[in-house]
Amino acid sequence: MANFGLDDLRVVNPYEVAFREAVSAVGGAHVLKSARVFETVAEAVADCSLVVGTTAAQKRELQQPIERIETGMQGIRDHAGRVALMFGSEKFGLSNDDLSYCHSLLRIPTNPRTPSMNLGQAVAVCLYELNRGAAAKPSGPRTDPMMNGVEGADAEQLTKMLLDVLEKSGYTNRITAVSTEHKIRRWVRRMRLTQRDVPLLLGILRQVLWKFEE
Amino acid sequence: MANFGLDDLRVVNPYEVAFREAVSAVGGAHVLKSARVFETVAEAVADCSLVVGTTAAQKRELQQPIERIETGMQGIRDHAGRVALMFGSEKFGLSNDDLSYCHSLLRIPTNPRTPSMNLGQAVAVCLYELNRGAAAKPSGPRTDPMMNGVEGADAEQLTKMLLDVLEKSGYTNRITAVSTEHKIRRWVRRMRLTQRDVPLLLGILRQVLWKFEE
Repeated sequence: MANFGLDDLRVVNPYEVAFREAVSAVGGAHVLKSARVFETVAEAVADCSLVVGTTAAQKRELQQPIERIETGMQGIRDHAGRVALMFGSEKFGLSNDDLSYCHSLLRIPTNPRTPSMNLGQAVAVCLYELNRGAAAKPSGPRTDPMMNGVEGADAEQLTKMLLDVLEKSGYTNRITAVSTEHKIRRWVRRMRLTQRDVPLLLGILRQVLWKFEE
Repeated sequence: MANFGLDDLRVVNPYEVAFREAVSAVGGAHVLKSARVFETVAEAVADCSLVVGTTAAQKRELQQPIERIETGMQGIRDHAGRVALMFGSEKFGLSNDDLSYCHSLLRIPTNPRTPSMNLGQAVAVCLYELNRGAAAKPSGPRTDPMMNGVEGADAEQLTKMLLDVLEKSGYTNRITAVSTEHKIRRWVRRMRLTQRDVPLLLGILRQVLWKFEE
């Protein structure tokens, strides 16, 4: 991260010992020192209006659009709000629950026979590509802040209220509850929602819930 | 190396213990196993007609042309003979003696305040760039028709059913009805909906309407 000029490291529920004993490379101490620890992904990305996951895209059936980093980083550079680039653990990658917070997914083109990368190397390659493209073609930021993506906290409020509607309407049952939650969370983030849509949508959902109570 | 489809690893005068105890990542065992050890750089690159060194390009006065990897890798790909890509040790990088075997040098564009990279990360970034440039052709359109946008008729069905929910919930009133209809119609079409979302959404809306009738 320090090599490529980034410093906002957020760690979700780390293995305490490994995290506390981590030793940074030369010049990277400030990144580790200022790293923030969160208990959940939701909290870690609460102020981010774009969350991009990384995956070797194997085995799992991915529900989100997945792009090669070369093209996908452009969307990150063009985004006017705060962007989270999310990496999973070395061993297991991102879980389906983690993935449900992502607006889109990136993959590093690797040999199909050896697709899984070391975590530190995957981060380095992604951040290199993020910088490389920026140097290759400068692009201006969007100007209307209301047209930015929805921040994580708002997306989560929408998700929760929509799930409430689904439950109260009888759409969700116990058996499908978790997969529905993931589906809805992904779906809210995949939409081209803007900050402007948030009050409209919350208003609709509130009205529906109110009607259920009648 | 395995991630990017390379397997000819040559190690010069390694620290025996570290080299023997090195454990490869998943899928990389064959690279380590077939690695060859040489006593000198001269022997290691004896059959290579192009030797390219990597450097953070600090302090040392470099005698060779130095290019960013993005442009420099082109020369490697274009070269008809065997090419060696040479990396120095984690701590000291390539010595002046090592560098004297190089035809040219590459550097990874890094933050000037933190230019030195971890060895494994530098290798990953270089091999990623080597592959990227080779594959850099526009990618074709997505082939899954279910991921295409929603057809007009479906979009309209969604719009109508959503408006029905709004009306029955009491969200819409006579004064705002027309502007709400326009807003919802535009909104349904602006979403990144796919054909796959249509049954999900219609199911939710139907359930909400059914609940209203209860």
